[in-house]
Amino acid sequence: MTETATHELILVREFDAPREKIFKAWTDPALMKEWFVPRPWTISDAKLDVRAGGASLIVMRSPEGQDFPNRGVYLEVIENEKLVFTDAYTSAWVPSEKPFMTATVLLEDIGNGRTKYTATAVHWTAEDKKTHEEMGFHEGWGKCADQLAELLARM
Amino acid sequence: MTETATHELILVREFDAPREKIFKAWTDPALMKEWFVPRPWTISDAKLDVRAGGASLIVMRSPEGQDFPNRGVYLEVIENEKLVFTDAYTSAWVPSEKPFMTATVLLEDIGNGRTKYTATAVHWTAEDKKTHEEMGFHEGWGKCADQLAELLARM
Repeated sequence: MTETATHELILVREFDAPREKIFKAWTDPALMKEWFVPRPWTISDAKLDVRAGGASLIVMRSPEGQDFPNRGVYLEVIENEKLVFTDAYTSAWVPSEKPFMTATVLLEDIGNGRTKYTATAVHWTAEDKKTHEEMGFHEGWGKCADQLAELLARM
Repeated sequence: MTETATHELILVREFDAPREKIFKAWTDPALMKEWFVPRPWTISDAKLDVRAGGASLIVMRSPEGQDFPNRGVYLEVIENEKLVFTDAYTSAWVPSEKPFMTATVLLEDIGNGRTKYTATAVHWTAEDKKTHEEMGFHEGWGKCADQLAELLARM
């Protein structure tokens, strides 16, 4: 797998929290609402059927109050270790209007209760990768990671 | 799920064989070679890692001897009941050059050792569905189903 072939965007962080907490923040709808969109956006609804083939619906609300539903399906779930999901399906296995990306969240224990966090988005085309980058992948996912770190400190 | 929304092509057959034999014909590379392309095409190689997230490589050989590799990933595997796979990934979870279809094979026991066989292909776009139809979905999958019935009779 090369970056060229998979049109990959990647965010790496280290969190001062064990993998279990991070996995929980990703999979518990109430917790996800606290960090998963850059503020002042909010999450008005989150339904997460966290298992391979399970569907997710995350509704992002703009500061003006407009709702943007995001549907996806989990492709792979390893508790406390790995989550893979895509927007290519809206449920198992109904094609979405536009297959845009596949995201992987990898959690690695690096000792002392700390975790290496690797969030990767791969795309089907170079153009979609570029669009995602211009939509603010690095700032957006980075700001969310900051919000996640704040949440982890409170958990 | 409606046909319109999923750009669906479908083939339904009844086979005079139990589900177990059909599942085996789909998942054992040696057996798959006997029926999975319309003759006089052949399968020169088949590697099937039959589990959710497992990769498949099926190399179809034209009568002129040219090889056409087809890569995919299984999304869902229920032994003797259901197989779902897609060409949207070449392995877990590397995007393919072109996500074209997701196929489901459903095996239903209808008594007396007989099985209802439903093979479905859904596409991301109406255009891809049309292309697949024009490539000969109905004749091709139909002819393969005939070859599968012949194999089942010999098994």
